[in-house]
Amino acid sequence: MDAADPLGATIRDRFVLDAPSDRASGDAGVYLDGNSLGALPRAVPGRIADVISREWGEMRIRSWDESGWWTAPERIGDKIAPLIGASPGRVVVGDSTSVNVFKAVVGGIRMAGKGCTEILVDATTFPTDGYIARSAARMTGLAVRPVEPTRIADEVTERTALALVNHVDYRTGELNDLPGITTALHSAGALAVWDLCHSAGALPVEVERYGVDLAVGCTYKYLNGGPGSPAYLYVRESLQDRFDSPLPGWNSHAEPFGMAPDYAPADGIVRGRVGTPDILSLLALETALDVWDGVSLEDVRTKSLALTDFFLDCVAAYVPPGRVRSITPYDHGRRGSQVSLECSGAAEVMTELIRRGVVGDFRKPDVLRFGFTPLYTSFADAERAAWVLGEVLRALPEQDPRTAGAGG
Amino acid sequence: MDAADPLGATIRDRFVLDAPSDRASGDAGVYLDGNSLGALPRAVPGRIADVISREWGEMRIRSWDESGWWTAPERIGDKIAPLIGASPGRVVVGDSTSVNVFKAVVGGIRMAGKGCTEILVDATTFPTDGYIARSAARMTGLAVRPVEPTRIADEVTERTALALVNHVDYRTGELNDLPGITTALHSAGALAVWDLCHSAGALPVEVERYGVDLAVGCTYKYLNGGPGSPAYLYVRESLQDRFDSPLPGWNSHAEPFGMAPDYAPADGIVRGRVGTPDILSLLALETALDVWDGVSLEDVRTKSLALTDFFLDCVAAYVPPGRVRSITPYDHGRRGSQVSLECSGAAEVMTELIRRGVVGDFRKPDVLRFGFTPLYTSFADAERAAWVLGEVLRALPEQDPRTAGAGG
Repeated sequence: MDAADPLGATIRDRFVLDAPSDRASGDAGVYLDGNSLGALPRAVPGRIADVISREWGEMRIRSWDESGWWTAPERIGDKIAPLIGASPGRVVVGDSTSVNVFKAVVGGIRMAGKGCTEILVDATTFPTDGYIARSAARMTGLAVRPVEPTRIADEVTERTALALVNHVDYRTGELNDLPGITTALHSAGALAVWDLCHSAGALPVEVERYGVDLAVGCTYKYLNGGPGSPAYLYVRESLQDRFDSPLPGWNSHAEPFGMAPDYAPADGIVRGRVGTPDILSLLALETALDVWDGVSLEDVRTKSLALTDFFLDCVAAYVPPGRVRSITPYDHGRRGSQVSLECSGAAEVMTELIRRGVVGDFRKPDVLRFGFTPLYTSFADAERAAWVLGEVLRALPEQDPRTAGAGG
Repeated sequence: MDAADPLGATIRDRFVLDAPSDRASGDAGVYLDGNSLGALPRAVPGRIADVISREWGEMRIRSWDESGWWTAPERIGDKIAPLIGASPGRVVVGDSTSVNVFKAVVGGIRMAGKGCTEILVDATTFPTDGYIARSAARMTGLAVRPVEPTRIADEVTERTALALVNHVDYRTGELNDLPGITTALHSAGALAVWDLCHSAGALPVEVERYGVDLAVGCTYKYLNGGPGSPAYLYVRESLQDRFDSPLPGWNSHAEPFGMAPDYAPADGIVRGRVGTPDILSLLALETALDVWDGVSLEDVRTKSLALTDFFLDCVAAYVPPGRVRSITPYDHGRRGSQVSLECSGAAEVMTELIRRGVVGDFRKPDVLRFGFTPLYTSFADAERAAWVLGEVLRALPEQDPRTAGAGG
């Protein structure tokens, strides 16, 4: 399967994967946590060395113009755009995902009709989205109603300003129905705000095709931008003129160096900028995005589904019956690019897996989470992970489910 | 004067200053724009190479714990704290200055008495502070009143929630009276929110001694953290329990990995965090802060005043009479660490200065701005800059002041 993989050795070789995960053993291990922190693209260290030593160290302040620092947020946004199905001029990079959720939700509320009294928030969302959405609603006088994604079409009303929904559930790996939910929201006159953290770079995302209004996403998972690399904001073209940011910093001003006391927003997606952009992290991300050159997102999706299918088959074959249960949908249409296994004593199991070179992560109370990043995860990696999981579970006694929660 | 400088060769040698500003000439030039972007500390390239290749490339996700990534915002805050007169646990690093102004102003408004109807904003402030303060006021239902810093004591009323003031005016280099203004605000029951962007690292700042309530600052000027390096937030200890952030991201949660649907703020300054911290930039800043080891802020202030005095003397000696006028106060008590000269045709003059290796910056409509960063600017630099300025002004015809604005 690896030999037949169109994303095989050539693409995988764009990443640093041969470094020992454990210097004592020299074993590179299996990395199945690219959905938390993507692996290092090979070109990044050299690029950042040059940014620091030459662009900062020698050119200093001149680099804001001459090295293209000032325009990096839009330029890198345009590089992300094709990965989420957006045209140039729709995406801007900067700030954390949480800060971008705040911009998107407040911005969306301000675009909504005056009669709107509430926003819907994906009840299964990554918590920060919910915390920030509540703050946005509190500061604009709206209520927040948590709703399961599958219930949004039934729950949206004419009083709903928008819904904030995750494209892929971070915990279960379930892929939500972006086209259907977006259409249902629009039918009720509400805006669709999508969090793409767990889908962009793992599968084709088509924000323009399906009329998504606003979207945010991080860049350190499947986009491999590095730890805490800046997030992005998408604003649909037809809404950009009405985007009224709650964080109107000088970088979003029509004339940032005019230093005018009154605020006048820039045209276009620049309006989503806030303060001085974080250049080291932005330029690491820019170089990291080069790994997508020549990669078809259809191939990515095909491989992602094949990898997760194969991993589930290997788990069924190698893991003692009854010790784990997949909470990731088997239906391809509802699956992201991770497999989450419920497992009694999951915290201890993951610690032992990592000790044996298989890196996934643990989510409370009892979930083993394995991310499959199609650009660099191999079928051999998937098989080894399932094999080692079987070994670990055979070595660890089965916990009494009534007390297993204490292990989480 | 350079030979007698206690911050002379040893400290200066902690920075990369010998690289040619112009590769053709090989001349390192004179860098007087450290108040926009600090020079590169020598230790940064090696540290970041290790962060990228080993901590990210090899250890990957394990580095959040094992390399201390997760706690970097507070740890680096504690490293900035002594530079602004704060104890440990009062400063957290992350996000841009603009985002931190939003946190500080909304947080301050929420701490203020219920009868408050307005905030005061330094009328001479760096514009982004004003834009963000207006957004914070709009979202909390308060009015904004711009006030000259020297008028704050007279203008504050019992309806004033807080005043947002710059410690040093970015344009003129004037040092505002932090102790006096803070006391006046407190007498009226208002909070003092200070922007330290142009003072921290250039002179002693004493936030705790004078009872400052909230403060923000950037780290890429006198703190040399690199282009767009993250900003910081200071919250007075006695107010931390009441700090109610408008950006309650998961990093500020009492149990961030609990993934609880309900928000519960962490104790202490961690409450000022928002989303996933930007590790490359944070760790570059952490290493950059090592240049302060063994440096006395009293020596920094003494040298800053001596450098700016000397530069003004050299300008008087070398520049044709009447061509420039200092708008920076001569009074040491009112001077920051820059000299701003009004000059007809300033934009063209600065372009020519930079071409001749003297890097300052231009601020509309007619200001030449020269920053003196005491850790690495020498008296020889100051003299050369004034000498070249004289040459440039003799070479450029004096513009008719009635049309000079067009050059800006």
